[in-house]
Parts: sequence; structure tokens; C-alpha cells
Amino acid sequence: MEIKRPLSKQPIPPDAKKVFHGVIFDVYQWQQKLFDGSYQMFEKLKRPDTVLILAVTEDRKIISSYQEQPGKESFRGLVGGRVDEGETPLEAAKRELREESGYESDDWTLFDAIQPVSKIDWTVYTFVAKKCKKTGDQELEAGEKIKLELVTFEEFTDLIFTREFGDAEIKTKFLEAKLDPAKMAELKKLIIG
Amino acid sequence: MEIKRPLSKQPIPPDAKKVFHGVIFDVYQWQQKLFDGSYQMFEKLKRPDTVLILAVTEDRKIISSYQEQPGKESFRGLVGGRVDEGETPLEAAKRELREESGYESDDWTLFDAIQPVSKIDWTVYTFVAKKCKKTGDQELEAGEKIKLELVTFEEFTDLIFTREFGDAEIKTKFLEAKLDPAKMAELKKLIIG
Repeated sequence: MEIKRPLSKQPIPPDAKKVFHGVIFDVYQWQQKLFDGSYQMFEKLKRPDTVLILAVTEDRKIISSYQEQPGKESFRGLVGGRVDEGETPLEAAKRELREESGYESDDWTLFDAIQPVSKIDWTVYTFVAKKCKKTGDQELEAGEKIKLELVTFEEFTDLIFTREFGDAEIKTKFLEAKLDPAKMAELKKLIIG
Repeated sequence: MEIKRPLSKQPIPPDAKKVFHGVIFDVYQWQQKLFDGSYQMFEKLKRPDTVLILAVTEDRKIISSYQEQPGKESFRGLVGGRVDEGETPLEAAKRELREESGYESDDWTLFDAIQPVSKIDWTVYTFVAKKCKKTGDQELEAGEKIKLELVTFEEFTDLIFTREFGDAEIKTKFLEAKLDPAKMAELKKLIIG
């Protein structure tokens, strides 16, 4: 599977200076030439890419998660997490699926790859992992409490539009499918088909 | 009009330290207690709030913008911009409408207020401004090239789902309305009324 990282609509230019290095975010600044020939300091962030997994069990249930994180409202979503240094997005997706759910899959497809925020150089990759098998226990970090809920495709298409569902990056494709029965059938086939 | 700023789902705690002050973004860090009693450095950004304006002329056309900004793909969207220090969101919306379009309105309603990115303390306020009158010329900055396009409500509901439309924050309400004719009628009444 060849995975291309989508380009930002406002790329950080090569001569930008990294002016801050944080735990998650790095800040870049550069002198941008404006339309009248003057210059202005522009600023953009960079953060590690993340992965989301539409994980489907052998009996065609989608693995949804109910998550608690310290200092944050609890939320529903998919399993997923950050791409670590030196990892490919697919390697990160396989690791996060294993750690957060205890499931593994040999059947991976890229579902979507987007840059959701124009002022952050940050790609969210969403994968479909079919025929997931439980091969072990969850291995959660001290900042994670994750309960899994196995739901049907139809239950999932409702769940993602509830207020407590956090992974906004996948909502657009499902809403578009809701407007068009042919697209919804295609989506269903792609995910649990 | 009373405007409440929506709360972040993961607020920056009062004891967080500002570790970087940028042109747009400030970075905050704090030691977050985890579920096992250990601590981890958490990080979150803060940036000025922004406003978007669904501006409607006296003959019920929506003012859409075609914008060029240095170093960025051109895009369509609404008029809008940052809330300056000391301004209320409504004051910012009135100023941005005047500067970017040359129009003014006496009929303002808050349409939506959301925090679109969980790791940034940042609110996007969207206003409806009805019965807009042209009272002057555009006053653009050196980093802006804005052409205005007056479109019908129906043209607008198509336009916002094209790839080049940038203001993602208003898309969800329009997609939900596309799924439900009663909601669409309500939205149309609210906006061009």
C-alpha cells in the first residue's frame, strides 16, 4: 500500500525558522512577502501525524472506543494515536490497534488522509482494518482509559454524529454518504463488505 | 445579544505556564496527573478567536469571498478575521465585514460558536448579518486580495461543499440541513429570512 502524505494548502517554507520546540507542537516563523512588496512575520505549527482505525471484527462489528483522558471530557471515537518517530502511518496504526484494543488484522486499506487545520502541518490518516482478531489484552498508558464497544455499521453511522463522538476527521465522508444512498452502500462495502 | 464563549473540552488549567508567545499562537504546558498517580507534561495552544460572517444583502444574496493570501492556495469562503485585543466578537465581525466587503448591517444574529480543534483554545464565532448595505470601499491589508461574489442561498449551499471552500466550521450545520428538508427550511429562514 503506497501512502502519500497530503500537502498543506499553506506549506511551511523551507527557510522558516523553528522558534519553539514543544512536547507536541513545534512553532515555525518566516518573513512572508506580501502583495505590496512589504514583509510580515507568518507563523505555523507542526505536530506529529496521527492515525485513526476503522477496525472491523470477523463478525462485521466496528470497534468503537469510549475514552477517558485526564483533564478532558470523556468521549467516544475510534482507536488511534500518534505516529512515533521512525514509524510509517501503517505501522503506527497496527501498533495503536494492538495496544488500545488487543486486536490485530492482516487486511488494511487507507480510507482517508487529510490535513484538518490550515495553520498546523498535521496529517490524520484513517485506515480500515478488516477481519480483526483478538490476539491479546489492551496495553494502555497511564493517560488512557479505553472501553471498547462493538457496534454494527448502522449503529456506527448514528454514533459518529452524537456530540460525544470526538474524531471529527471522519464525519464528512459519512455525512456525504447519508445524503446519497449509493455512496452509503459503497462506504458500507468498503468498511465491513 | 449576549454571547457566551464555548468551553473547551480540555481547558488549559489555571496553573499552566505560558512557555512560548508567538505572533498568533501561545503555548501552555502543565504537569497533568495521570490515572496511576504519575505526572506527564501536557501542552495546549491558545490563539485569538476569529469571526465569520454570513452576510446577506437587501436582495437576499449571500456575500461569498474569493481570497488570495501570500503563500497559500486561493480559496472561497466567508468574510471574517481575528478578534483584536479589547474587541468583542460582534465588534470584530462588524469591522471585518466593513473592511473586507465595504458593507454594513444593523441586523446581527449569532449563528454558531464552536471550538473546532481540541488542542487549541480558539473559538470561531459565526454571525448572520442581514440587510447589508454597501457604505464604502473595501479596506484590504497588504496580505489580502478579496473578490466578492453575491450568490443565492441555493448556490451557497452547493458552494460550501466544494474543495476550494475554506471555512470548514460552518459545513456541519449545512450538511445536517441537507439531510433534513425541515432543517434546511429553518436555516434558509434564519439566514435570508
